[in-house]
Amino acid sequence: MANTDSVSVRIFSLNCWGIHYLSKHCSQRYAMIGDMLCKEEHDIVLLQEVWSEKDYLFLKKKLACSHPHSHYFKSGVIGSGLAIFSKPRIHDTFLYRYSLNGYPYMAHHGDWFGGKAVGMAVFKLGSLIANVYVTHLHAEYCREKDSYLPHRVVQAWELQQFICHTSAGADVVILGGDLNMHPQDLGSRLLRSYTGLRDSYLETAKFDGCENGMTLIANNPFINKRELSPFENGIRIDYILFKGSSKTEIYCDSMSTTKGSVPDHPFPYSDHEALTSELRLESHTPPEIGRDTQSKDQDSAAGKVAKLVDIVTEARTEVKVGLHWAERMRYTAARTGVMGLALLFLELAIAAVPWLALGAEQPFPRTSFYLLAALCFAILLITSLLYIFYTMELKSLQGAEDQMRLAVGSLQEKLRGFPLAQPHKAMRRPPEGQEPSAFDPVE
Amino acid sequence: MANTDSVSVRIFSLNCWGIHYLSKHCSQRYAMIGDMLCKEEHDIVLLQEVWSEKDYLFLKKKLACSHPHSHYFKSGVIGSGLAIFSKPRIHDTFLYRYSLNGYPYMAHHGDWFGGKAVGMAVFKLGSLIANVYVTHLHAEYCREKDSYLPHRVVQAWELQQFICHTSAGADVVILGGDLNMHPQDLGSRLLRSYTGLRDSYLETAKFDGCENGMTLIANNPFINKRELSPFENGIRIDYILFKGSSKTEIYCDSMSTTKGSVPDHPFPYSDHEALTSELRLESHTPPEIGRDTQSKDQDSAAGKVAKLVDIVTEARTEVKVGLHWAERMRYTAARTGVMGLALLFLELAIAAVPWLALGAEQPFPRTSFYLLAALCFAILLITSLLYIFYTMELKSLQGAEDQMRLAVGSLQEKLRGFPLAQPHKAMRRPPEGQEPSAFDPVE
Repeated sequence: MANTDSVSVRIFSLNCWGIHYLSKHCSQRYAMIGDMLCKEEHDIVLLQEVWSEKDYLFLKKKLACSHPHSHYFKSGVIGSGLAIFSKPRIHDTFLYRYSLNGYPYMAHHGDWFGGKAVGMAVFKLGSLIANVYVTHLHAEYCREKDSYLPHRVVQAWELQQFICHTSAGADVVILGGDLNMHPQDLGSRLLRSYTGLRDSYLETAKFDGCENGMTLIANNPFINKRELSPFENGIRIDYILFKGSSKTEIYCDSMSTTKGSVPDHPFPYSDHEALTSELRLESHTPPEIGRDTQSKDQDSAAGKVAKLVDIVTEARTEVKVGLHWAERMRYTAARTGVMGLALLFLELAIAAVPWLALGAEQPFPRTSFYLLAALCFAILLITSLLYIFYTMELKSLQGAEDQMRLAVGSLQEKLRGFPLAQPHKAMRRPPEGQEPSAFDPVE
Repeated sequence: MANTDSVSVRIFSLNCWGIHYLSKHCSQRYAMIGDMLCKEEHDIVLLQEVWSEKDYLFLKKKLACSHPHSHYFKSGVIGSGLAIFSKPRIHDTFLYRYSLNGYPYMAHHGDWFGGKAVGMAVFKLGSLIANVYVTHLHAEYCREKDSYLPHRVVQAWELQQFICHTSAGADVVILGGDLNMHPQDLGSRLLRSYTGLRDSYLETAKFDGCENGMTLIANNPFINKRELSPFENGIRIDYILFKGSSKTEIYCDSMSTTKGSVPDHPFPYSDHEALTSELRLESHTPPEIGRDTQSKDQDSAAGKVAKLVDIVTEARTEVKVGLHWAERMRYTAARTGVMGLALLFLELAIAAVPWLALGAEQPFPRTSFYLLAALCFAILLITSLLYIFYTMELKSLQGAEDQMRLAVGSLQEKLRGFPLAQPHKAMRRPPEGQEPSAFDPVE
């Protein structure tokens, strides 16, 4: 194994909490973030919740010298909120919008309007091709009764699909962002197991930051401590994940988080803590695989596949819960719509033939007539829109469930093939430029 | 160059025109399609406009013996309409929903409700990994005044992005479907130039089918001849495209289309003609590239990149036309909304203080009051929804335009680098497993 190249990259990730008029000290915080990024000169900066394009343009101007390249991913009504600033050139970008992302009528949560997505940018770091992803998944507003869980699980599923399918040509894969999932949550496990991505916090040689790598902490003055309950000290929901390939080893030399305050400033950069990871990429010629290593690899791969089957099955169950809920909601919308229509017909019948119902001497009071008609029309319109929306939600959930069923089938087929496949393994074409991960579409 | 493997695959593609109650003889045609597919036993069948899941399940049951594997891609309100049936196992699937797809209020065109998308399925053909894509782009209703052109161009852009980014690990790439674009339309050129996909009809050794490979022909009894004008005989808008990789050569041995009628049946399978391509895949070890070949390759690659810059610039112009239109429509929606609000306030003011406006002896007539109020509310609601919709359209168009600008920048950088890059070319890592195409994200 002869090392031919070694490159260091410093990756930064921060959820900027950039909701003007709602987030506190928004403009001042952007000025602070800009100053800090200018000074720190990270190689690649991944930002989330940059909801206003004006703020992106403010940062772009401020970082023109330190980070000449940038991209703002646009999506939904108010944008995906995702932005990338970088020292190396961005060669290509691609955006995948998640098919599910909350409900438009939950306007106080606002996730639907954000058009959550995963953005990809292609860089060349030294001689290596790096696919860098930035994402922000649906928020968790109530852990005990999390009605958005099926949506977040589907987002995690689509995120792993997007990364697996788009990273075959990359030497290095880096994902940063606010996943809104704890490390052991279903979506986190699904994402890490499928993609083979490793967690900076768990892999780092040196760590300087909040206890347990937490990124939403009680010490942050913007955090409402009651909302963190039962996790009094805080939670870890922001990540920098990475993986190499058969041609590239990747190490995390150090990692740090901010600690809820910024020296010489009255408040922190955001309600989330910022993450910085220093990654070292080493390209090498792939080692020759001996028989023994191969057999050991296969055992561990079989274990990984079995674990993956369990995780995907768990995810399918969660999606099915979402399916039942969406079906029930669609049924309720349909039933309410039919009732509104019946009421309208009844009203029209009474108004048209008053002598039948109420006698000619008592016509339908006009005020009530118009109010009732307006109410009926409003019910019909709203229930129609809801019916269309729930149908789309159902299609997306069914689609994800179908894909998961197919994936479980493929994984089980693979699992059955493990003892038999051994002699053929040398002939099988390894996934292009990838580290052996549990995900491998063909066998 | 030592051939190690040769595999033949027969690919079938058909737009099934499966709109129950609107398309003629829908159920009978599905029965005919099922019989034909059962008999013909193509390896991979790519269907579009299978709008009803019941029809998919009908075909799935009918093809259980000939095509044991299948997948139905779900999206939008009534589904993406895309289905795959195959003899080889489907190992993995992935769906990308286009960010733009017409307007929900153009219900008579219906494209928006279809949730147009591109579906991907991963197969193993012999020892080769094949990524097979099926898609259906937005229809063209009026060629002279095609208000959907920017949407279709963005769809073609996203389609090429999706194929380029997801096919790096594949030995073979096959795309089938109804692109709703003529061979020389902007979107077709964009797609073919970027991805390097080749057209079955142009590459085939043997052809049996309609004149000029047309797939929407005047001879088809379901076709309204006036709608074809000015192309009296027909147009070619359905395609089977393919490409190999550095490890795989791919040839089209024969191609055929149906000819507007089916023997022993009173009507054809659909309003579109069906396509069948017989592809031969030959895997080999990549040849050693000599200095001379390299230099010649570079010249031709430079030409391709220059052409690509022109095409992307043309696409950007088209997207900008769409941007202006969407901005104007959003402005109109906002202005109408404000007028509705002003009318409502005026009405409330008159009703609240009648003695000011009309004198105490003439109160606001109740009937008019409620009718006017209902009208104002309806205006406000509709313009709000339209404003949200046009904002989302604008974001998607701006996003595509940003990506195109970045792509042009990258391509121009590459073009400038051509004479200089020559000595370094051997050091550059070629795109994984791909044929040299004009698209290459890094330089």
